[in-house]
Amino acid sequence: MVGGGQLARMTHQAAIALGQSLRVLSAGPDESAALVAADVRIGAHDDLAALRDLADGATVVTFDHEHVPTEHLAALEAAGTRVAPGPRALVHAQDKLVLRRALAAAGEPQPAWAEVATAADVTRFAGEHGWPVVLKTPRGGYDGKGVFVVRDAGEAAGLLERHGTLLAEERVAMVRELSAQVARSPFGQVAVWPVVETVQRDGVCAEVVAPAPGLPDELATAAQELAVRIADSLGVVGMLAVELFQTADGVQVNELAMRPHNSGHWTIEGARTSQFEQHLRAVLDYPLGSTAMTASVVVMANVLGGAAAEPDWAGAPLDERMHHLMAHWPDVKVHWYGKTQRRGRKLGHVTALGDDLADVRARAGAAARYLADGVVDPAFAFETEH
Amino acid sequence: MVGGGQLARMTHQAAIALGQSLRVLSAGPDESAALVAADVRIGAHDDLAALRDLADGATVVTFDHEHVPTEHLAALEAAGTRVAPGPRALVHAQDKLVLRRALAAAGEPQPAWAEVATAADVTRFAGEHGWPVVLKTPRGGYDGKGVFVVRDAGEAAGLLERHGTLLAEERVAMVRELSAQVARSPFGQVAVWPVVETVQRDGVCAEVVAPAPGLPDELATAAQELAVRIADSLGVVGMLAVELFQTADGVQVNELAMRPHNSGHWTIEGARTSQFEQHLRAVLDYPLGSTAMTASVVVMANVLGGAAAEPDWAGAPLDERMHHLMAHWPDVKVHWYGKTQRRGRKLGHVTALGDDLADVRARAGAAARYLADGVVDPAFAFETEH
Repeated sequence: MVGGGQLARMTHQAAIALGQSLRVLSAGPDESAALVAADVRIGAHDDLAALRDLADGATVVTFDHEHVPTEHLAALEAAGTRVAPGPRALVHAQDKLVLRRALAAAGEPQPAWAEVATAADVTRFAGEHGWPVVLKTPRGGYDGKGVFVVRDAGEAAGLLERHGTLLAEERVAMVRELSAQVARSPFGQVAVWPVVETVQRDGVCAEVVAPAPGLPDELATAAQELAVRIADSLGVVGMLAVELFQTADGVQVNELAMRPHNSGHWTIEGARTSQFEQHLRAVLDYPLGSTAMTASVVVMANVLGGAAAEPDWAGAPLDERMHHLMAHWPDVKVHWYGKTQRRGRKLGHVTALGDDLADVRARAGAAARYLADGVVDPAFAFETEH
Repeated sequence: MVGGGQLARMTHQAAIALGQSLRVLSAGPDESAALVAADVRIGAHDDLAALRDLADGATVVTFDHEHVPTEHLAALEAAGTRVAPGPRALVHAQDKLVLRRALAAAGEPQPAWAEVATAADVTRFAGEHGWPVVLKTPRGGYDGKGVFVVRDAGEAAGLLERHGTLLAEERVAMVRELSAQVARSPFGQVAVWPVVETVQRDGVCAEVVAPAPGLPDELATAAQELAVRIADSLGVVGMLAVELFQTADGVQVNELAMRPHNSGHWTIEGARTSQFEQHLRAVLDYPLGSTAMTASVVVMANVLGGAAAEPDWAGAPLDERMHHLMAHWPDVKVHWYGKTQRRGRKLGHVTALGDDLADVRARAGAAARYLADGVVDPAFAFETEH
């Protein structure tokens, strides 16, 4: 797996059960996955020699992020390495303009968009779809980076000068964000999980609720079918997350990830087969596992670095917060990624399961906030267990 | 963790979620845990220098087997290393005579027993309790090794000559075997799982059914209380498995394991907190996690090396068997230990979950047999999924 982050870390966990050991190409020895995997190569994801070394003797090469240059993947394939997803599929998760064009050609629902090179292009687009306009760098963005909401031509001009050609999108009047995950094997077998709601804060995923509360069955099915159509038509092998805007009329595709995705962390405990195991099954061309949920409501909350990540933090240290979390919520599952704490960084996540949406959501949220910063939610301050 | 077997392998998986990385002392680089852990020291469990190297900088030293010499553990403790369970507790899992004496002193239920040094001692014991007599080597036995059923003084004499002083036990008229698992923290917090039935074949655990079918509540509670009393009185820190004989009158203690145990593999998917995570929580002095079951019936079946482990095996290779298993039983969970296949060796296990005992048991058993040897159970031959 190219990339040594938490996705590789959790994929390694899943690989262990399948009798496999994940080889990781990690930027450094202290990355999340490099800390726990047996076979770690230190190197850059854009260094062809490092990629060749990773591929040597491996069954298949896969990814924990989208940043490997297409030409390097083509070079690996030319040398006989199996790459999953392949570069022709992956480019749709790497380049938002390529994705928009492909979805337009296939007639799939998406926001109004245009390729813009000048402020006049943006003004023309705004004339049709209104200000503000969302401008996105076609490549390299993640967690809200590379996404800009501009209110006038002047703001647009500054961004275009800095970034070159951009993707312009209408600002969608959305109800909420959803994610539909599907796994697809080389053989073409697909497996879908229930569609989930993803809650973003400051452009970063904060919480995922499975299944998406109150989502009408026909819309859930439509979203799953959309994800399967995209996976099939692009020839995706492995996990595909289709990030969706839910609008008054249905759903529109926001963007794609072709790898395990933050919107699927809930599946570790919440589904019979986790997205990490399923990704491995798919890229190894094994039959896919059951995606049945193990509880009626599952909520995952990210632990994002906050005040406790600052050097002058005077509150309870992480180990003490971990103790208190475990004492308060003996059935909340913790996943800690072993990273250096830094503000806004995804440091870990917690998962709560149960039958009552409000209760499960409150527990997950309170546990994550407590682990991040020792902030005690008054509703839980005097509880000793749940 | 001292020992690089499958217990260390699965403990490492659990450690990853807690933000930890297990350091493993493994006899060789191809042991189950050595294949997947980031920090592997190659060395023998009875080499004090290797143990000191393992302990250097570690939070705590713990075990995946019982074979570390007591004096070495005492030496580690004397040097300031935290050892869990400590040598004074662990000796009760290492030495069956020590255990029998301690249980007798505490008045806990166990088979009639005696320390025997001569054939006359055995004959005297048989005079009271009848032939056959079960003779056990006090130390070093596992998976049925070191256990002998003798029918007369002559057989006994031969064993005593070879092994020296032995433990004699009456052959218990048992209904079945049970296992009661408890975790205990240094602080004295305990957590118990439902009591399970363990099914042995040729002295090796073949199957574990959770909860033990038809076990009366009061007997289940008594077995859990017995396990907690033993853990408390011996000062166990970490996991304790109390292997029990169920008799017409109640339960009797067979032996103890102070580590994650084969009878608890079902907890990975079947309980909110697995025995592996719980062992880590306990030895790290974290609060213990919920032991609630995630399904009403959970069955674990071991995959034991059989015909397919022979060099001349002409059937489907492992990878093909794995494919078919996953296609037939998309909701059966596979755990493969990465070991060389050998007859009788524990190569992996499978876990099935559900509501119907007969169905869950049949699926787990058929999947395990299929994975071991490609033997298709007629009841499943034409099924495509469950």
